[in-house]
Amino acid sequence: MPHKLALIGFGTVAQGLVEILLRKEQELRDRHGMEFVVVAITDPIKGSLYDPSGLDLSAVMNSLESSGSLGQYPKSQDTTTGWDSFLTIDQCGADTVIEATYTNVVDGQPGLDHCRAALRSGKNVVTTNKGPIALAFDELQSLAARHGARILFEGTVMSGTPVLRLAATTLVGNEIRKVRGILNGTSNFILSKMDEGMAFDDALGEAQRLGYAEADPTADVDGYDAQYKLQILAHAVFGTRIAREEIARTGIRQITPQQIAQAKTEGRRYKLIAQLENTASGMRGSVAPEALAMDDPLSAIHGAMNAISFDCDLSGDVTVVGPGAGRLETGYALLVDCMNLVRHNV
Amino acid sequence: MPHKLALIGFGTVAQGLVEILLRKEQELRDRHGMEFVVVAITDPIKGSLYDPSGLDLSAVMNSLESSGSLGQYPKSQDTTTGWDSFLTIDQCGADTVIEATYTNVVDGQPGLDHCRAALRSGKNVVTTNKGPIALAFDELQSLAARHGARILFEGTVMSGTPVLRLAATTLVGNEIRKVRGILNGTSNFILSKMDEGMAFDDALGEAQRLGYAEADPTADVDGYDAQYKLQILAHAVFGTRIAREEIARTGIRQITPQQIAQAKTEGRRYKLIAQLENTASGMRGSVAPEALAMDDPLSAIHGAMNAISFDCDLSGDVTVVGPGAGRLETGYALLVDCMNLVRHNV
Repeated sequence: MPHKLALIGFGTVAQGLVEILLRKEQELRDRHGMEFVVVAITDPIKGSLYDPSGLDLSAVMNSLESSGSLGQYPKSQDTTTGWDSFLTIDQCGADTVIEATYTNVVDGQPGLDHCRAALRSGKNVVTTNKGPIALAFDELQSLAARHGARILFEGTVMSGTPVLRLAATTLVGNEIRKVRGILNGTSNFILSKMDEGMAFDDALGEAQRLGYAEADPTADVDGYDAQYKLQILAHAVFGTRIAREEIARTGIRQITPQQIAQAKTEGRRYKLIAQLENTASGMRGSVAPEALAMDDPLSAIHGAMNAISFDCDLSGDVTVVGPGAGRLETGYALLVDCMNLVRHNV
Repeated sequence: MPHKLALIGFGTVAQGLVEILLRKEQELRDRHGMEFVVVAITDPIKGSLYDPSGLDLSAVMNSLESSGSLGQYPKSQDTTTGWDSFLTIDQCGADTVIEATYTNVVDGQPGLDHCRAALRSGKNVVTTNKGPIALAFDELQSLAARHGARILFEGTVMSGTPVLRLAATTLVGNEIRKVRGILNGTSNFILSKMDEGMAFDDALGEAQRLGYAEADPTADVDGYDAQYKLQILAHAVFGTRIAREEIARTGIRQITPQQIAQAKTEGRRYKLIAQLENTASGMRGSVAPEALAMDDPLSAIHGAMNAISFDCDLSGDVTVVGPGAGRLETGYALLVDCMNLVRHNV
C-alpha cells in the first residue's frame, strides 16, 4: 500500500521533496520496500491539485518550470483543482500531511492551524516549520496521541542533518546534559565574512545579495531564529519545555571589526552560540556571541554551515556538523521523517 | 526476561561496560524496559567467574580494585571459576557474548575464534575488537545468519560516537558517496603537538608517556589502524569489502617541523586523513597525511578526538566529531549495541 502524502505549501522545500521522490522512487521501493504517492498539493500562489490515485510528479515539476504555477498540469477527470489548504487537509485522504508553509514565529499561523486540522483528522504531520513546534509542541503532541497520529519535525533544526533523531536514537542510553550549537546559518555566514575583515553592514549586504538573509534580517542576526530552535531542542532532546522569554538572547549586530580583530590575535573566533543546559534548577538557555578557542570544534564551522555539540555522560562530547539549509537537504528532512513514519520508528 | 551477557576479556573496555551497567541499571529498567545480567566473565590474567543467575557486579569491581583480579569475588555454591574463554562461550548460556579482548590485526586471534564459537552456538556477538571485523566480516555475517544470531561492532570505529549506526539509520535514504575522517587518535594527538612546535619524536614520546601511544607505535603512526577502520567502514557504510592491500597507506613519521610550519603560513594544518570512496570502478581507499584548509571541519579536530565526514547525495556533507577512545566511551559502544540487540534494531 502506498503511503499517501498531501503537500501544504509548495515552496523550495516541498519542491525539494518532490524532486527527491522522483529521483529515488525505484530505490525507495526496491531497497526499502516503500512507496510514496502525492495525492494533493496546495499553495496560495501556485494553485492546487488533488488526485486520489496520485499526481504525476514529473508533470507537476514541468508545469512549475514552464509557468511558475500548477496551472499547466494536464488534468484528467480525476483531478480536482482550487482547494485551499484546509479543504485539502480535510478531503485529501492522505496518510501524512507535509506542512511546508513559511515559518511565522509570532503566532505560528497558518502552519499551526494546518497541523491542528491534520492531526484532528487522524493524519500524521511532517513539517520543517519551526513556528508550530516552538509555540505549541505540547498541544500538538497530545492532539496527535488522541487521534492516533504522529508529528515529526527533523527539518526544523539543521535541515537534513539528522540531529533530533541522533539525540533520540543513536545516542540512546546517554544522559545528554547540554547542547551547544551554531544554529543560524545567516549569522554564521556574516560572522565568517567579518572574520575575513568585512564590517557587519557589508557582510549583511552580501548575505542579502546571495539570498542567505532576508530584507528584514532581525530573526537571524538578533538571535530569534536560534531561540526557536532551542525551544524545539528542549522538547526533542530533553523532553521538556522552555519559554522563549527564559532564553537570554544577544544578537551579532553590536560586534565590531575591532572585537573580531582582537579575538583573532588571541587565537579566537566569534560565533553565535545557542546553548541549552539541563540543570538541577531547570533548563537554562541562551543565545549570544562567543569568542571560541580554535580547538573548539564549533570554531571551524564556516559560512552557512550549522553544528550542534551534545554533552553526553557516556559518549562524551559528540558534535554533528552539516548544512543548515538547502532545497535537497531540507527536502531530505521531510523524506526521512516520512520513512520513519512508515517504519513506525522514532 | 533479563538479557544475559558473557564478557570475554576483562580489560578497560569491558570494565567500562560493567561500570555503566551498575550506574544505569535503574534507568535501563525504568526508562527502556531492559535488564542485563552478566553471567560470566573470563580473562586470561584476571581469572574467570560464572554464575547462571548473574554475577554481583559491585562485588566484581570490588574484587578488581582490591586485588587486581577476580580472585576476591565472594563465591556461592552457584559460582564456577576457572573456565577459559572457549569453555565460557560454550557453557555460559548467555544471549550475547561481549568480545573485548585486545585487537590483533595479523590474524584476528583469539578474538576471531571467540566470535566464531559464539555465533556457532547461536549467541549474538558485540565487540570493540577491530581484528575479527576487518579480517572476516563476510564469514562472521554468514555464520550469524546461519545460526539466527547477530554481530554488532559500533565500538570498532570512533568508540562510543555512533558513526556506524548514524550511517545506517539516521542518514537512511541518502546515498553515501564518500567517507573521510580522522580515525586514529594517537596520530592526531602527535600532529596536534607538532602543530604546537614539537618534533615527531618528542610528540611521540609525550603520547607514550600519557598512554595514548604504545611502546611500538607502528599500528597508529604508520596508518595500519586507520586502514582496518576503513575496511570496517566499507562493510558498514557501503555494504562491500575492500582488501587491506587496496588501501594506499602513508603514515606521519616523515612529516617534518618545516612542513608543519610551511602549512601554517598557508593557513593549513596537517591531519592523517583516512578516505573511502564508492566509484564507478569500485571502492577506492587511502590513508595519508593532508594539509587541510582551516574551513575544513576536520582541520579543527584536535588531540585524541576523531571525526568522520559523510558525503551524502541529499543531506550534503555531514560530519560527526567525538572521542575515539576512553573507558566509558567504549563501554557505551558495547551498551548501545546490546540495547539495539534487545530491541531488534540495526
